Amino acid sequence: MTKWPDQMDYLSLGKRVRLHRMMYEHGPGNGKLLILPIDQGLEHGPVDFFPHPLCEDPDFQFRLAAEGGYSGIALHLGLAEKYAAKYAGKVPIVLKINGKTRIPPANQPVSPMTASVEDAVRIGADAVGYTLYVGSPGQYDDFNQFRQVKRDADRYGMPVIMWAYPRGEAIDKKGGRDSVFAVDYAARVACELGADVVKLNVPIDDPKKRSQERPPYDKLELSYNERVRKVVKSAGKTLVLFSGGSMMGDDDLIKRAKACLDEGAAGLIFGRNLWQREWADALKITEKLKQMMLES
Amino acid sequence: MTKWPDQMDYLSLGKRVRLHRMMYEHGPGNGKLLILPIDQGLEHGPVDFFPHPLCEDPDFQFRLAAEGGYSGIALHLGLAEKYAAKYAGKVPIVLKINGKTRIPPANQPVSPMTASVEDAVRIGADAVGYTLYVGSPGQYDDFNQFRQVKRDADRYGMPVIMWAYPRGEAIDKKGGRDSVFAVDYAARVACELGADVVKLNVPIDDPKKRSQERPPYDKLELSYNERVRKVVKSAGKTLVLFSGGSMMGDDDLIKRAKACLDEGAAGLIFGRNLWQREWADALKITEKLKQMMLES
Amino acid sequence: MTKWPDQMDYLSLGKRVRLHRMMYEHGPGNGKLLILPIDQGLEHGPVDFFPHPLCEDPDFQFRLAAEGGYSGIALHLGLAEKYAAKYAGKVPIVLKINGKTRIPPANQPVSPMTASVEDAVRIGADAVGYTLYVGSPGQYDDFNQFRQVKRDADRYGMPVIMWAYPRGEAIDKKGGRDSVFAVDYAARVACELGADVVKLNVPIDDPKKRSQERPPYDKLELSYNERVRKVVKSAGKTLVLFSGGSMMGDDDLIKRAKACLDEGAAGLIFGRNLWQREWADALKITEKLKQMMLES
Amino acid sequence: MTKWPDQMDYLSLGKRVRLHRMMYEHGPGNGKLLILPIDQGLEHGPVDFFPHPLCEDPDFQFRLAAEGGYSGIALHLGLAEKYAAKYAGKVPIVLKINGKTRIPPANQPVSPMTASVEDAVRIGADAVGYTLYVGSPGQYDDFNQFRQVKRDADRYGMPVIMWAYPRGEAIDKKGGRDSVFAVDYAARVACELGADVVKLNVPIDDPKKRSQERPPYDKLELSYNERVRKVVKSAGKTLVLFSGGSMMGDDDLIKRAKACLDEGAAGLIFGRNLWQREWADALKITEKLKQMMLES
Amino acid sequence: MTKWPDQMDYLSLGKRVRLHRMMYEHGPGNGKLLILPIDQGLEHGPVDFFPHPLCEDPDFQFRLAAEGGYSGIALHLGLAEKYAAKYAGKVPIVLKINGKTRIPPANQPVSPMTASVEDAVRIGADAVGYTLYVGSPGQYDDFNQFRQVKRDADRYGMPVIMWAYPRGEAIDKKGGRDSVFAVDYAARVACELGADVVKLNVPIDDPKKRSQERPPYDKLELSYNERVRKVVKSAGKTLVLFSGGSMMGDDDLIKRAKACLDEGAAGLIFGRNLWQREWADALKITEKLKQMMLES
Repeated sequence: MTKWPDQMDYLSLGKRVRLHRMMYEHGPGNGKLLILPIDQGLEHGPVDFFPHPLCEDPDFQFRLAAEGGYSGIALHLGLAEKYAAKYAGKVPIVLKINGKTRIPPANQPVSPMTASVEDAVRIGADAVGYTLYVGSPGQYDDFNQFRQVKRDADRYGMPVIMWAYPRGEAIDKKGGRDSVFAVDYAARVACELGADVVKLNVPIDDPKKRSQERPPYDKLELSYNERVRKVVKSAGKTLVLFSGGSMMGDDDLIKRAKACLDEGAAGLIFGRNLWQREWADALKITEKLKQMMLES
Repeated sequence: MTKWPDQMDYLSLGKRVRLHRMMYEHGPGNGKLLILPIDQGLEHGPVDFFPHPLCEDPDFQFRLAAEGGYSGIALHLGLAEKYAAKYAGKVPIVLKINGKTRIPPANQPVSPMTASVEDAVRIGADAVGYTLYVGSPGQYDDFNQFRQVKRDADRYGMPVIMWAYPRGEAIDKKGGRDSVFAVDYAARVACELGADVVKLNVPIDDPKKRSQERPPYDKLELSYNERVRKVVKSAGKTLVLFSGGSMMGDDDLIKRAKACLDEGAAGLIFGRNLWQREWADALKITEKLKQMMLES
Repeated sequence: MTKWPDQMDYLSLGKRVRLHRMMYEHGPGNGKLLILPIDQGLEHGPVDFFPHPLCEDPDFQFRLAAEGGYSGIALHLGLAEKYAAKYAGKVPIVLKINGKTRIPPANQPVSPMTASVEDAVRIGADAVGYTLYVGSPGQYDDFNQFRQVKRDADRYGMPVIMWAYPRGEAIDKKGGRDSVFAVDYAARVACELGADVVKLNVPIDDPKKRSQERPPYDKLELSYNERVRKVVKSAGKTLVLFSGGSMMGDDDLIKRAKACLDEGAAGLIFGRNLWQREWADALKITEKLKQMMLES
Repeated sequence: MTKWPDQMDYLSLGKRVRLHRMMYEHGPGNGKLLILPIDQGLEHGPVDFFPHPLCEDPDFQFRLAAEGGYSGIALHLGLAEKYAAKYAGKVPIVLKINGKTRIPPANQPVSPMTASVEDAVRIGADAVGYTLYVGSPGQYDDFNQFRQVKRDADRYGMPVIMWAYPRGEAIDKKGGRDSVFAVDYAARVACELGADVVKLNVPIDDPKKRSQERPPYDKLELSYNERVRKVVKSAGKTLVLFSGGSMMGDDDLIKRAKACLDEGAAGLIFGRNLWQREWADALKITEKLKQMMLES
Repeated sequence: MTKWPDQMDYLSLGKRVRLHRMMYEHGPGNGKLLILPIDQGLEHGPVDFFPHPLCEDPDFQFRLAAEGGYSGIALHLGLAEKYAAKYAGKVPIVLKINGKTRIPPANQPVSPMTASVEDAVRIGADAVGYTLYVGSPGQYDDFNQFRQVKRDADRYGMPVIMWAYPRGEAIDKKGGRDSVFAVDYAARVACELGADVVKLNVPIDDPKKRSQERPPYDKLELSYNERVRKVVKSAGKTLVLFSGGSMMGDDDLIKRAKACLDEGAAGLIFGRNLWQREWADALKITEKLKQMMLES
C-alpha cells in the first residue's frame, strides 16, 4: 500500500482523495508529482508556441500528459472545457482559476479570476491553481480574493495549489523576484495562508544583487541545493513544486530536477521545457524525469 | 441531416440548441453565421446613421435581418425590447450585454454591463455578446466581469460570443489594436477564457509598425489569407466571426469575406457595410454574401 | 376610449397601468405628460427658493401639482414621505432615485442612489426617475448602476424616466452639454439602455462652438424645431420630455413648449419656470400650457 | 395626553413609538429633545477628557443622562455594549452607526460604519445616528451608504438622526463649514434624503467670509435668531437638533439654546458643554436647560 | 470558584465560555492571559527565525505553548490547520483573521482578511484576532471590514482581540506610532468599536518627539508605569494585552511585564522574546512570567 506522507495528515477527506489520484494513480506513482502546465497561451500569448507550432493545439499537451503519464495538467477553464473530454479520467486536471495577459503594465498585479472552485468540481478537476503575487501593491485585493477561494476549496474538499510569485516594485528593489529573500518569504506566505501545495521558482543567487536583499539575506551565500532546501523548509508542511522556466539541455534539466527532489520537493511542474519539444523527444525526457523521480 | 461541427461537441445541450437555430435554421443554413450588428448607436453615437438616415430607425435593421435571412441580429436590451416583438421567431437575437459610449477618454476601458444573461433568457435570445478589451489596464475588472457572465451563461445554456478587442496604451505601443500580435493574442484569450464564439477584426500588416510588435511577430510577413489563418488557429475550437469595419466596395467585401471563410472562419458579422446602404442594395449584397457562404 | 400610442405597445402590463395613470387620468389627459419636478433643493440647494420664498415649502409644489392638474410630481424619497400623504391619489409620484448636491467638483459625475425601485413600489409611485450622465468619465459605474435599476423596474412593472444629461470634460470639448451632438447621443443612449421615457434639454445651436462638435455635427445648422425633431427621432420609441431650464417670459415659454410637442415630444417637465411664480400666476401658466397641449 | 407634532404624522408606527419614548417619556417630557452625545472619544480621541478626567469613564455620562433625565444618550456600539446594561430602560440610546477618528487627512471624508440598524434593534436603541458629510468629494459613497441605512431603518421602524456636517474643499472655498450657505444646504439635504431628525450647527455669520458664499447668500446679513430660523425652515418637516460645540459660559449657553427653541428647533444635543463639568455643576446646568425647554 | 471580572459582565454566554477557557483553564489560571503569537512569518517574513532556526517549524511554538502552559497561541489559518491537530484541546487558539506581508509600501495600510469568524468556529478557536491600523488613510475600509468581523463574532459568541496599531503619515507627524497620543487614541478606538480585548504596545516617551504630539499630549511627561496606566484607562472595560516587541534581557522583561499587570493589564502577548530562545531557556522564562503573573 502506498505511504501517505505524514505531513499531510491534516488534510480533509476530499482533499486526500483528490491528491491521492494525482500522487499515486497518475505520474510516477510514488507520491511525487509531475505536472504539465498549459496556461502560457493566456499568460504569455501565442508567442510560446512559435518554437514548435504543433504545440499551439492544446490537444498536443493533453496527449503528452496522457501518454507520458503525468500527475496532472494545469490549465484554464476554456481549454479544459474544449479539449479535456477526450482524456476524461486519463489525466487529472488542475484548474487554474485566476490568470491574466501580460500586456498591461504589471505595476500593481493581482490576477483576476477566470473560473471558480465550483467550476473545478463541475468539470471533475482534482485541484485548483491560484496565482498570488507576494509583495505586490495589490496585496490587499489578492489576499482577500485568495481567502474566498480557500473557503470554497475547504468546503468542497478541493486541494489548492498556490503559484506563489514575488512581484512588484518593492520586490525589485530587494534583490528581485528570484532572490532567496523573495522566494523564501513567498514559501512562508503560502504556508500561513493555507495553500496545500505551493509552486515556487528555485531562487537564484545573483552576487550583484545580493546586497540589496533584506538582512540577513544579504549575507547568505547558498548553493543551488541549499537554496532549494531553504525554501522547502520555509514552506513547512506545504508540498512544494518547482518550475522549470525556459528551455534548457536535458542533462541540466534532470540534474536540477533531481536536486529539487533530493532537497524535499514534492514534485515538478514543467511546461515549455517539455512541450516545446518534438513529440518523440518530449516523451523521452518525460520518461527520464519519471525514472529519476522514482529513484529519488 | 445537418452536420454539427466536431470542434463543438463539447457544448452543453442548451448551447447546442441555441447555436443550431442560428447556424442551420437561419442565415445561409449550412452552419455558417451571418450576423447583423446594430449596437453602433450606443458605441459610436447617431453619427453612423448620417450616411443613410433611414437606418436610424432600428426597424430598418430588423426588417433587413428578417427579409435578408440573417443568422441573427446583435443589439442592446433597449432596442431588443422596443423593436424585436414584430420579428419574434423570425430573427435570432444576440443580446449584447455590455457596451459603452465612446465619449469619455478610453485610456482604461472596461465595458459596463447593460443587461444580463437572465435578460437574454427572458427575451428569448439565442446568444449573448460580451466585449472584452484584451490588454487594457482595466483587465482585472474585465476578466472578473466576464467570468460572472460565463458562469451564468453555462448555467442557462446560453452561447457566449466574445467581441475580443485589443485596447490600451500597451497595445498601442506594440503595433496597435489591429496588429497580428494583438489580434492573435486576443484570439487565444477568447479560447482560454471560455468564449464559444469570438468576433475578431482581420489583422492588418502595417510594415511601418511591424517592428514595434513583440518578437517574433516583428519578423512575420503574412498575406491577408495567412493572417486570417493564423488567428483562426489561435482561437482553437472557438468559432471565429470576422467583422467588416467601415464601408467598402462590393467586390472587395465579397473577396475579403470569402478569404475569411476559406481560412476557417465560422462566419461574418457585418454592420455598417450592410445597413448604410439603400434597401434594395442592402438586400442584394446580403444575397451575394449568403451565396458565397453557401459555396464556401 | 383613450388611444394608447403604438410605439409603446412593447411595455409590460404594470408599466402600462402606471403610465396610463399619468398620461390619461392626470395632466392634460390626452396622453401628453406635464411633470412638475421638485428635486432642485437637493441638486442646487435652497438657492432656487430665494426668488419666491413660499416655494421652499414642498407643500407649495404639491398643491400646485394637485390643483393645477399635473401628470405627476418628481422628487426624492424624503420629500415624498414627508409631504405626499395629503395628496395621495391626487398627484402621481415620479420618485427620483438618484441625485446629488452640486457642491463637490463635478469632474467625474455619477449620481448616487437616494432610493430604490422597491421604495417607489412601497410609496405607490407611478414611475422612477434616474439621472444618467452621458459621456462622463464615471460612465462605467453609472451604466452598471442603471442596469440594476432597470432590472428591478422590469421586475416590478415600474416605468423608468431617464434624465439623460451630457456631462464631463470630453463633452465640454465637443461643443458642450447642450450641443446637438451631445443631446442627440444622449437620446440614443436612453433608447438603447432601455429607458421608457427620457428627459432631455432642447439642444442649443451655438455657432461659436459648432465647429468643436464631432463631425458631421459640426456642419449642421438646425432651427429650434429641427433640433427638437432630430433628438426626438434619435430617441426612437422612447417617449421624450423636454425641460424648461431657468425662468423666461410666458409667450416664449408657450411657444417653445409648443414647438416641442409639434415635433414629437411626449410632454414637458417644467420646474422653476412654474413654481418660482406667485400662486395665481403659476396656476394661470399651467392652464395655458395644458390648453396648448390639448390642442397639439 | 401629549400632543404629537403634526409635522411628524408621516412617520411609521415603529418610529413613532421609539421617538415618543425620547420625546415624552424622557427628557423635558414636552416633546422637546435633550440628547447627551458621547462619541467624542472616537471622533476626537481622549483629548476631550483632559479638562475633566472623571468623564473619561463612560459611566459618568450614563449616570448624568440617567440622573439628569436626558431624552437620550448618543454613542457607538462598543460603549453601548459595555456600559449601558446598568442603565437599561433608564436612558434611551441613540446608536451612532458610523464614525471615524480625525487622524488621517479629512480631504475626502466618508464616515465608515461602526454598527448597523440591526445592532440598534438588538440592543434596544430608540434611534440611530448617521453622519453625512454634505459637499464632500466622497458624496457618492456617502449617499449610497446612507440609503442602505435608511432602507433598514424604514424596515425596522427605527428613527434616523442625521448629523449633517458640511465638509470638503468646495465647502471651505464657499465660506466654510459653518456658513449659512453650507448649513442651509445641509438642512435641505437631510430633508430630501429622508432623515427623521437632523443635527445641525448654528451657522456663523463671518463678515470676512461672507462674500465667498454662493449668491445670494453672499448678501445675507442675518442675526443669530434669523440664522437659526433660516435653517430650521430649510429642514422642513425634519426635526432639528442644534449642537453646542466647545465649552462656554452658562448664561451664553442658555441664551443661545433658548433662541434655537424659540426659532423652531426640536431640541438640543450638548456634549462637552455638559460632561466636561464637575458632577454637581453638570446636573445644575442640565436642570436649567430642561427648565428653559419646558418654558419654551 | 474563579472570580469573573465585573468589567466583563456585559459579555454574551458564548464569549464568556471561550474567554473562560483562556483565562482560567489555561495560562496562569488566575484570569490573566499569556498569549504566544506566531504570525511573524507572515507579517515579517522568515527573517524572524534566523536567530534561532529551530523556531521556523511552527511545531516549536505549539510545543512551547502546550508544555509551557500558555493561555493561547495566536496564528493564521494555514498554520492552525497544518500544525494544531496534535495539540487539539491542549492549547487554545486565537485565530488571526487578517494580516499581510510587509513588503509593499505601507502608506495606506489595511490588513486583508486571511480567514473568517466561521473558520475560527470550525477549527475550535477560542478567539479571533483582528489588526486595525488606527489613523491610517485606509481607515474607511478598515472600520467597515472590522464591523463585519464584529457582527459575525457577536453572532457566534467569539471573543475579538483587536491588535490596535497606530499607522500612517498623520501618525508619523504627531509623534509616531508609539507615542502616548497614538496608543492612547488606539485604546479608546478599540473600546468604542467594540473589541473585547485589545493588544497595545506600551507607549514610549521620546522627549525629542513629544512636542509633535497633539496638545495636551505634548506637555505630558509620564513614567513607564504612568504610560501603561493611562492607556489601560482609555481602553475602559476592554481587556488590555501588552506586547513584548524585540528581544531584551530577562530582568528587564519581567520588570516591564510586571509593571503592565500592576497598572491594570489583563495579560501579555510575547512572541519573539520567548520563542527566539533555546527550548530550555524559553520554558524557564515562561515559568518566571507565569509565576510573576500569579503573584500580581
